[in-house]
Amino acid sequence: MAQATVVMQNIEGIGTKEVAASQRRTAFGLAATDNSGVLAPFHFFRRENGDEDISIKILYCGICHTDLHQAKNEWKSTIYPCVPGHEIVGIVTEVGANVQKFKIGERAGVGCLVGSCRRCDSCSQNQESYCSNLIFTYNSIDTDGSNTYGGYSDMIVVDQHFAVKFPENLPMDKGAPLLCAGITVYSPMKNLGLNEAGKHLGVVGLGGLGHVAVKFGKAFGMKVTVISSSAKKKAEAIDGLGADDFLVGSDSQHMQAAAETMDGIIDTVSAKHELAPLIALLKKNGKLVLLGAPEEPLELHVMPLLNGAKGIIGSLIGGMKDTQEMIDFAGEHNITAEIELIGAGYVNRAMARLAKSDVRYRFVIDIGNTLTDV
Amino acid sequence: MAQATVVMQNIEGIGTKEVAASQRRTAFGLAATDNSGVLAPFHFFRRENGDEDISIKILYCGICHTDLHQAKNEWKSTIYPCVPGHEIVGIVTEVGANVQKFKIGERAGVGCLVGSCRRCDSCSQNQESYCSNLIFTYNSIDTDGSNTYGGYSDMIVVDQHFAVKFPENLPMDKGAPLLCAGITVYSPMKNLGLNEAGKHLGVVGLGGLGHVAVKFGKAFGMKVTVISSSAKKKAEAIDGLGADDFLVGSDSQHMQAAAETMDGIIDTVSAKHELAPLIALLKKNGKLVLLGAPEEPLELHVMPLLNGAKGIIGSLIGGMKDTQEMIDFAGEHNITAEIELIGAGYVNRAMARLAKSDVRYRFVIDIGNTLTDV
Repeated sequence: MAQATVVMQNIEGIGTKEVAASQRRTAFGLAATDNSGVLAPFHFFRRENGDEDISIKILYCGICHTDLHQAKNEWKSTIYPCVPGHEIVGIVTEVGANVQKFKIGERAGVGCLVGSCRRCDSCSQNQESYCSNLIFTYNSIDTDGSNTYGGYSDMIVVDQHFAVKFPENLPMDKGAPLLCAGITVYSPMKNLGLNEAGKHLGVVGLGGLGHVAVKFGKAFGMKVTVISSSAKKKAEAIDGLGADDFLVGSDSQHMQAAAETMDGIIDTVSAKHELAPLIALLKKNGKLVLLGAPEEPLELHVMPLLNGAKGIIGSLIGGMKDTQEMIDFAGEHNITAEIELIGAGYVNRAMARLAKSDVRYRFVIDIGNTLTDV
Repeated sequence: MAQATVVMQNIEGIGTKEVAASQRRTAFGLAATDNSGVLAPFHFFRRENGDEDISIKILYCGICHTDLHQAKNEWKSTIYPCVPGHEIVGIVTEVGANVQKFKIGERAGVGCLVGSCRRCDSCSQNQESYCSNLIFTYNSIDTDGSNTYGGYSDMIVVDQHFAVKFPENLPMDKGAPLLCAGITVYSPMKNLGLNEAGKHLGVVGLGGLGHVAVKFGKAFGMKVTVISSSAKKKAEAIDGLGADDFLVGSDSQHMQAAAETMDGIIDTVSAKHELAPLIALLKKNGKLVLLGAPEEPLELHVMPLLNGAKGIIGSLIGGMKDTQEMIDFAGEHNITAEIELIGAGYVNRAMARLAKSDVRYRFVIDIGNTLTDV
């Protein structure tokens, strides 16, 4: 409780309203407290379970690259203490008076969002991830003025609208990353028609997002070609993930042979890279979907866009309706992420390895069995 | 006939098949013969009127900026002699055995295209302008191996599929530019849903394309804002063309106030320019349509695309179905281009003025009344 007192002082420092002690839930997790990014045990409060809320005992939480950026304040927007984690799966332990969607004991998942205005055009169109008043699962300011804390913790209280029913047949550990990586690739694929059998999908970058994009593409019945900077990834792309073809970006002969063959490309690369060779791969009316945001501007050669009515589209996560649809589809088609399951005590080492891209393809923390062991 | 003989030698030089003299039609026009771009009288042959063809006595032809580029070989692809012109309106003088669409004496228009493969995906989807075997109205190689010659001439023979029925009520001179400028803006507006009443359209650049985009936007019932580099164009945009609002790109205060208000932007600028201020004007899911192709690559900042699911789409002319629909819509709504009607003898001076953007907004040559006078 001494620690909890300290925490409340921290929270008040960023403008938390005073909340009656009886309305709070005690929670325990792993937090970064400065830009060293080192995660340490952390006691804190979550809100009372409101009428629209469910409480979830967290069992698994994936480690997204965003967690690393935020823990280290690399995007200059981190509010410390910062409990990362937005690939959350667990069991419902409490439901509010108005909750019909969940029952106690059921599985639930929480992704990147825990709140939005619910009224704007984006929210009305089930595109909450573009709401200007979006509340992220962690490192956001909640409606009560408190900081939001993520899934590297034992429990979470969340509005039922922002939790998805997690399929009973889907492994919870391997399914957790779908709540961020899965919806991030599924949403643009669905919304741009890149989910139709027989179409040809390119996937650039074979990391957390890319490897899941390959799996969804194959489940949709598409031809999937991985485009990578490294020839070393060919075996994992084709033999490991089931991609149909593999191109090395610097291999101009094979890139040229594949020109104008793809209906769309999911580009997951966050580093600066050339767009022109990717645009050349697109058929007429093809779309290049950018999911990573390089800090430096990219070079855009316009004529190839005109000559083929081609487009470049950005996409950010996805809405709750699509997230439920995505995880249901994953359940039906047994789509999971390739993961390395770790204990909570390994999280700092995992973060260090993630910084070097030393993971195939996602770390997932076994919260339920190991968080109390820290 | 001496000139015609010379012409045949030129054509044979680029691989024309030998055509029986009885099957050829004599034609007269204005051609550039070298990269001075100077247009001079020119006698040549067109093909026999085939079963699918119509012959048109040309009355008016607009001068598109492309004509200037091609006459001077600025795109390094000009085949001399070059008869420019792809905004052609005239009267049908002959119809082939299989022609149902036109009768002799009716009005007909020809735009940028006179042929395509008719079988590929683009052609099947009524997007002939993206066919890889597209035949442009001039400076292309036709199926018989001959060079195509454009509308700065007294007549043209064209497959009925690539001619549109020109509305009886639309002025032929002011309507001619719609066959290039009109379809070039209409096609992406229609295909991207930027033709719905109440939506907000931005138009960048107030030239031949831009001023027509304003008129179509207003006819669709949209709010139209012109974005220009020059404050001097405000009166012509609002008072002259009926735009609702006007923004100067360098006026950051007003640009900021208009942030996230536009459903789409038609960007007609061919010079290098910044995309970021335009993307900032788009609502979530908004589309920036690029119609001009700067030679140098543009800078693309990716994060704003991600945060708003925004897109950048290229577009090139439009297909024949859309062209007919466009000109019918123009007839119904009395949409015409603002033109300066000139005699054929003025064409070289007009080209020089066009190079300095000294025209509001399109020169149209009065072919029918003046070409023989040259």
